[in-house]
Amino acid sequence: MSGGLDSTTCLAWARQEGFACYALSFDYGQRHSIELEAARRTAEALGAVEHRVAKIDLRVFGHSALTDDIDVPKHRDESAMNAAIPITYVPARNTIFLSFALAWAEVLEAADIIIGVNALDYSGYPDCRPEYIAAYEAMANLATQVGVEGRTKLKIHTPLLHLSKADIVKLGAELGVPFGLTHSCYDPTPAGKPCGACDSCLLRAKGFREAGIADL
Amino acid sequence: MSGGLDSTTCLAWARQEGFACYALSFDYGQRHSIELEAARRTAEALGAVEHRVAKIDLRVFGHSALTDDIDVPKHRDESAMNAAIPITYVPARNTIFLSFALAWAEVLEAADIIIGVNALDYSGYPDCRPEYIAAYEAMANLATQVGVEGRTKLKIHTPLLHLSKADIVKLGAELGVPFGLTHSCYDPTPAGKPCGACDSCLLRAKGFREAGIADL
Repeated sequence: MSGGLDSTTCLAWARQEGFACYALSFDYGQRHSIELEAARRTAEALGAVEHRVAKIDLRVFGHSALTDDIDVPKHRDESAMNAAIPITYVPARNTIFLSFALAWAEVLEAADIIIGVNALDYSGYPDCRPEYIAAYEAMANLATQVGVEGRTKLKIHTPLLHLSKADIVKLGAELGVPFGLTHSCYDPTPAGKPCGACDSCLLRAKGFREAGIADL
Repeated sequence: MSGGLDSTTCLAWARQEGFACYALSFDYGQRHSIELEAARRTAEALGAVEHRVAKIDLRVFGHSALTDDIDVPKHRDESAMNAAIPITYVPARNTIFLSFALAWAEVLEAADIIIGVNALDYSGYPDCRPEYIAAYEAMANLATQVGVEGRTKLKIHTPLLHLSKADIVKLGAELGVPFGLTHSCYDPTPAGKPCGACDSCLLRAKGFREAGIADL
């Protein structure tokens, strides 16, 4: 739960599907903690049973603009965004995030993990591909007590996997996502205002524009 | 790298295989930090290029005698150890550990991860089974830039997978493992002396006894 558009829409989707939701966020040395505040707000607004923040230090390995002192790229067009794996990529991030979710799922005896990965607008990230998610699910079913004989099969749900950003905005609007509480920017001002120029801001703006919905 | 018998023997094995070794330990809120000191000593003694400690908070989900205020079981016989998943099991621990190793491997552009899991003496842990490791490797090859087209296939090595504790002691002895620098106990005294009664101490003692080698 980053408190962004995608994870918040996922939570709203899961609530509508009837899941009791335990929201998990990560304090992973990202340069801004505004997203943790947004996650707390959106988890509460959408009725999560619980919201926990796991502290993990991804800076120990460095190598990303989201955790290192590397400038976040600005004003890129979409071909530049999709040309290569972006500098904002955090090594093995979804694998690490899913592994913590798996640990909590095991403690809760939960058999469903929901993650807001998207294969269309973030094609540069290897750990957003459908074949990656399928392989993770297969592994997860062997990894824990949830996966041992007689237990429920663990499922990784990816409701946004094949949606465009505009589709996500439309789904979020249908589900009543409080867009104004969400936060997407990779490089906000100290006061928490989005920069409007990083890949995340540009993709969000394009999504709302194409959906014909105002970003409040 | 826990600084125990298994991970230290793995490091010695990897050095003999010709790998340049980057040793990774975890500060995961375990009740004793003596193992991190043992890991530092053994990594240095066996010529690791680098040793890093990643801080992660597994206590956020609780549920294990290694991270919670639950008593470590003592003086159990082997049938009791193998009867059920032990209370010292940390949920999804190997999955989380391997995920951090995968992140570091990606940064280093390394294609080999070595882990000292063992399917014989720890049959109660689901994440020590060969089918789990195979599934993890398949997932890892889809998770990162190491796994994208044209890159080397990532391999997870488990040199101890099918060895008994006695076999591990024999292998360690052949490879010149400095047993005296290693630490295995789940519940050491404040001065760092092993308790001699937890599952880990009992299995270690049995391994040395059956190998006919003195534990110095």
